[in-house]
Amino acid sequence: MRNITEHNITEAVIARFAGCDDSRLKEIMSSLVTHLHAFVRETRITEAEWAKGIEFLTATGHITDDKRQEFILLSDTLGVSMLTVAMNHTKPPAATEATVFGPFHVEGAPVFENGADISGGAPGEPLFVNCTVRGLDGEPIAGAIVDTWQADDDGFYDVQVAGLEQHRARGTLRTDEAGRFWFQSVLPVAYPIPTDGPVGAMLVATGRHPWRPAHVHFLIRAPGYETLTTHVFRAGDPYLDSDTVFGVRASLLAEFVPHAAEAGRGRHHTLDFGFVLAPQKG
Amino acid sequence: MRNITEHNITEAVIARFAGCDDSRLKEIMSSLVTHLHAFVRETRITEAEWAKGIEFLTATGHITDDKRQEFILLSDTLGVSMLTVAMNHTKPPAATEATVFGPFHVEGAPVFENGADISGGAPGEPLFVNCTVRGLDGEPIAGAIVDTWQADDDGFYDVQVAGLEQHRARGTLRTDEAGRFWFQSVLPVAYPIPTDGPVGAMLVATGRHPWRPAHVHFLIRAPGYETLTTHVFRAGDPYLDSDTVFGVRASLLAEFVPHAAEAGRGRHHTLDFGFVLAPQKG
Repeated sequence: MRNITEHNITEAVIARFAGCDDSRLKEIMSSLVTHLHAFVRETRITEAEWAKGIEFLTATGHITDDKRQEFILLSDTLGVSMLTVAMNHTKPPAATEATVFGPFHVEGAPVFENGADISGGAPGEPLFVNCTVRGLDGEPIAGAIVDTWQADDDGFYDVQVAGLEQHRARGTLRTDEAGRFWFQSVLPVAYPIPTDGPVGAMLVATGRHPWRPAHVHFLIRAPGYETLTTHVFRAGDPYLDSDTVFGVRASLLAEFVPHAAEAGRGRHHTLDFGFVLAPQKG
Repeated sequence: MRNITEHNITEAVIARFAGCDDSRLKEIMSSLVTHLHAFVRETRITEAEWAKGIEFLTATGHITDDKRQEFILLSDTLGVSMLTVAMNHTKPPAATEATVFGPFHVEGAPVFENGADISGGAPGEPLFVNCTVRGLDGEPIAGAIVDTWQADDDGFYDVQVAGLEQHRARGTLRTDEAGRFWFQSVLPVAYPIPTDGPVGAMLVATGRHPWRPAHVHFLIRAPGYETLTTHVFRAGDPYLDSDTVFGVRASLLAEFVPHAAEAGRGRHHTLDFGFVLAPQKG
């Protein structure tokens, strides 16, 4: 192939994967090259524009470390994460829908008993969460492992707070015999995704806001059931129609009910939610 | 938009660019999202596979520094660089064709007089290069600025040699009144692109070799002419049909003529090449 041109190069690159033993990888790489080239041809991108793209990817890599994942943020803000989630989690209508995983999950979060205050001193009004985990037929799922994490009243996850050593507003719980789990945390508020990096610059340049509506993350695992990665969003949030990562699904909205101060409790909110897990596929 | 699905998410993301003031950026982002989503849909990528992709991009960013540009290497090995070059440099048939810029150019290379030995001690058999720079009508172009750079007999560019402080086999020259420039360097050999990073891992995983056929880079600038970024490839090289970055064009092949030791010169090679610049567009 000594005369690569604009017109034959896609074929030439794909032919180079002929010796790939891994047929799935070959399929993925061939599709990637086809669509990447189609993008370059459609926009007739200039060399200066492509250099800007290389610069953008480099900056995205350089700001990424063990606490910050800017490529996930990029994938989220371009709707690729949500598309992947939606495609991979077609569920029976009764099952709780999945949404994006996001960049702020942490392995090895502290384990709590039901009823515990998991806030760890994070700022915010108290929130009392009461949930159930059931199967499609309404059977309670006992012993399900529930990871939960969320932003605080300042709009930050613990991992975003400089110098903070301990976990806050994050924990692992276990459902009881009746499929229930419950805990105390703080009321989540809408927050902007980090805007001091290349993804933030992309949002500004394209006239987009960086806000996500208030939500609490849940990752629920139980043997025999499909693992559920989802959020519960706060009904009434002004950003529900324009979540910058495209994660909202109407079925995941819930009331975070405000309560005036009462005996033994100051001003607080409650959230009740019922999760329904789909059976494991295959 | 509270019910993002697999089917409406591309539309939803593109709609989010409605407020972008920069119409070219809007066009590029909308096209990027369309094609990226098409790739994800066509392959029905799993979440684990997408996570591998994020990991790959992260590693590519982390290995990139001021001396190594792994994203350019990725763009090169996927044929995107060559596609961009080919699209942006459609030239009259008589003009010298362009090829990839590559990741090893350095700004501020040392300036040499014609006839100088620019090798700086790089290992390799001596190579004497004699070139002309002309316009389409054969007129010599005096005062053209020529950047040249190349790998040495070990297959390395100077910037790849750990601990090396000075430039080697790299320099800037100027054409004389007759449009000529000439210098001494070393015979380039075929070399593998760096394989110790994620791009190397991709090549191994997909059954591709990392080799580029032997070549010398030239970047030639002259007022009134389109800047030419190209290589001259060594005819007979075994990798001319499988350059891992798809840069070969038949018109860029030349004989690197071997000469036995003769009076005053040991065993050496000569390269003669005539560059033809296209007039500046617009």
